Order: sequence, then structure tokens, then C-alpha cells
Amino acid sequence: MANNRIKPKGRKDIHQVFGINGVLSILKSNKYLMQKIEILEKSHVTRNTEIRELLKNYTSQTHHLNYDTFYKKYGENRTQGIVISFSGVLVKILPSFKNTEENYCLLIVDNLTDPQNLGQIIRTAECAGVNGIIIPERNSVGITDTVLQVSQGAFCSIPIYSVTNLNQTLSQLKEDDFWTIAIENGIDAKPWDQIDYNGKIAIVIGSEGQGIKPLVLRSCDFQATIPMQGETASLNVSAATAVVLFERLRQIKS
Amino acid sequence: MANNRIKPKGRKDIHQVFGINGVLSILKSNKYLMQKIEILEKSHVTRNTEIRELLKNYTSQTHHLNYDTFYKKYGENRTQGIVISFSGVLVKILPSFKNTEENYCLLIVDNLTDPQNLGQIIRTAECAGVNGIIIPERNSVGITDTVLQVSQGAFCSIPIYSVTNLNQTLSQLKEDDFWTIAIENGIDAKPWDQIDYNGKIAIVIGSEGQGIKPLVLRSCDFQATIPMQGETASLNVSAATAVVLFERLRQIKS
Repeated sequence: MANNRIKPKGRKDIHQVFGINGVLSILKSNKYLMQKIEILEKSHVTRNTEIRELLKNYTSQTHHLNYDTFYKKYGENRTQGIVISFSGVLVKILPSFKNTEENYCLLIVDNLTDPQNLGQIIRTAECAGVNGIIIPERNSVGITDTVLQVSQGAFCSIPIYSVTNLNQTLSQLKEDDFWTIAIENGIDAKPWDQIDYNGKIAIVIGSEGQGIKPLVLRSCDFQATIPMQGETASLNVSAATAVVLFERLRQIKS
Repeated sequence: MANNRIKPKGRKDIHQVFGINGVLSILKSNKYLMQKIEILEKSHVTRNTEIRELLKNYTSQTHHLNYDTFYKKYGENRTQGIVISFSGVLVKILPSFKNTEENYCLLIVDNLTDPQNLGQIIRTAECAGVNGIIIPERNSVGITDTVLQVSQGAFCSIPIYSVTNLNQTLSQLKEDDFWTIAIENGIDAKPWDQIDYNGKIAIVIGSEGQGIKPLVLRSCDFQATIPMQGETASLNVSAATAVVLFERLRQIKS
């Protein structure tokens, strides 16, 4: 696995996630090395049978903290009484997608800087059956603890790929028979529901402020736009992503 | 307008919003009373011609603050150099919807407690052409400054109605010829894209933790579900709302 690992700048080796959903996903995935599991004594989580069962494998890493100690450390967060510290591979290098299943979808996130949005997008993409997420190493927020937290454990079951040059990636994907679709409000854009999302596709989304970088945008085969009905400027990028990914799902399942 | 006003519990009379988009929406809407407009000297916003023009009507309320003073007050927030304090009617009582246009859509928000989610939902609903949002006075987060902020000014152009009894409201809407659709993962639920959203409809969404209250759910004509493709439990409620509202838009425009 060593050559399958990229360490983005500034990434800590130990990650921390709290709350029952996120912790369950991490424990059940069997992909990460547990460093420390801290539990609030007598809290609701201590009676969660699924978590109790999973924690039997981690007795030496599990610590029960009393109320004062736990709240001194984590009082501000909505921990639900459980905080987990773990290490492991969070991002992979991009493999070849030459031989994939018929309807294969990658989501490319360009320029995104808000970890809340990235976390939500990972969660939504996993729910929508996206096969992988591609994030450029530079100009985008990394996989921070906030991103992991907001994703509600989705990062455990959807591969996240880190790439150095998004234009090279787009070229590679085209060689692997992908159509590339940018979500962007450009003059050449078609309404989001008039795009064909069947087959092998890569959907590119950008930041709210700056959108997709011009060079990346020019490399895309199609542009999809979501026409706004009201007077407010635009949808949040994670809402726009949800709209497009579930329109794809609607098309491929019908 | 006096009888059109409800004051939810705990609501402050003065609201505060920062950032160019939100401030522009408030100033342009002409619906609110400006109390104070604070601007960071020499910041980008002072060169925004649209804002400069609008502020000509509010010279006595406008204060230019130097860097130290401004950052002492608002340093933690992403203000973009402008903070506005205003008062006015944010929620209305429910009118009759007997005589409305053909495709009329109300969004009912039950049980929601996260102001970030409510703000995002107001923003998404406005973008999706929803005609109004109904929020119960109890058991839901109120229209706090966080909600206003996250909505990015959308609250200025979509009516928000406060009601005391959601079941009574649903009965009234049925008398006014609405179909009511709950977004809920129940056994009677149909996939979200197999629901007909044409005509007069009210869409009911609940909180992530508790969903829609049973009594409210039983009052709904249909249940729509968004089947999850991955291993993570569920979509965030604001993402689910975006998916359903834009599926409605797709149907009514085609």
C-alpha cells in the first residue's frame, strides 16, 4: 500500500472524529488504525450494543472518562459521548479507470476552500453512489478533521483521490472513455436535466466564489447549469452537487 | 401590516447580517428598517458601486470603522467588511392559498433544530422557486441571525410563515386543494422521482435525528424517499430538500 499513499501538505497523521455515526463507520470499515477511543462514562453511547461489540477489539485503546475530564477536553463539540483518534490512508493516487462498470461516476472538486462544503459533498456523493472523488493537491481544502466529521463517516466507503494536475487528470479520464461535465453557469451550459449522465462520466464542481478554473472548464466536454428561479444569486455548491448527482441517479436507474 | 405579524419566542427585534450578498439583498428588498450599517474603512466593499449607490439613502445609519475597531467587533466572522443591523417583519401568519397560481409549492419544515440547515434550506427553496416556507412556532429553530446569514439574503424574497399547529395547517392546505408530500423513509414511501409534483403541493421535511412527527406524517397524502446507494445512513436534510425541490422543478418545467 505504501506507493498508494500521498501525504497532502499540512495533513496530520492522527485524525479525530466524534459522534456515533462517524465512529461506527470508522470501526466497521476496518481500514484504519485506532489510536485512542475516549468515551464519556455512563453516557448513552455506552449502551449502544453495536459500538460495544466493535470496541471489544480495542480494549487497550479505549478509555472511559468522567464527566469533568471529558467536557474539559471536548465540551464544545457535539460528541455524543465518543471521540476516536485514528490513523490511516485517507487519499489514494489515481488508478486507471479503463476497465470499469458501465455507469461509473467520478466527482472532481476544483478550487473548493470550505471544509464544511467538502464534507457535505463527500457525504452526498457517497449517498448518490458516486464511485470516487478527485481533489487537487493545491488550491483546495485538504481532508481535515472538519471534512471527515461533516462527511459523517462517508469517507470510509468512497475512495478519495489526490491529484497534482487536474488538466492531466481530465486528459487521462478522456483516454479512459469518460465524458466530462462541468457544473458551471456559462453561456454554453445546458440545463442540468438535459445532460445525459449515463456511462462513464466525470462531474466537475468549483468553489462558490471563483467557480471552476478557466483551463479546467475548457477541458470539459459539457457544461450543466441549474437555472435559479428566485432573486438570490446561487445555490450553495453542496446543494448544487446534490441536485446533479441525484438527477444522474434518476437517469441511470430508469 | 400589524395583524400580519407574529413574534416568535426569543426573537430579537434587531437582526444582524454581514457579507456583500446578504447585505445587498436586504438593502434592495426595501422591506426592513436599517438601524446601523458598519463598514470597514478602505476595504473592498467601499468600492462596490451597487452598495455605494444603495447606501446613499442611509447616510445617517452608516458608520465607517477603522481596522482595529472593526476587527475587535467582528474579527471572527467572514464579514467582507460590512455588517448591517436591521429590524422588520421576518415571519408572517398563514394566509389563505385558495386562489393561487397553477404550480404552487409550499415547504413545511417540521422539527428542525440546526440553524445552519434551516438557513441552507431557505436559500435552496428560494433558488428552486418555492412560494413560501412554513415553520412551526415550537419544536423548531427560530429565524435566528445564523439562519438569516446562512440563507444569503434569500429570506428577503421568500415568505416565511409561522404556525402554531402544523396539523391544523395541513388540514387548511388540503381544504385549499393542496396535495401534501412528506420526505420520509417509510415503508409506504415511493422513490422521490415517482411522485407527481405538479399542481398545488406542500412538501414536508423533518429533522435528521427525529424526522417528521408521527401525527404530521399521518396527515400527509404521499411519502417520498431518496434511496441511499452507499453505506452511510442518510443524506443531510438540506441536501435531501435540494434533490426533491429540483426534481419538482424538472417536472413542472417539462
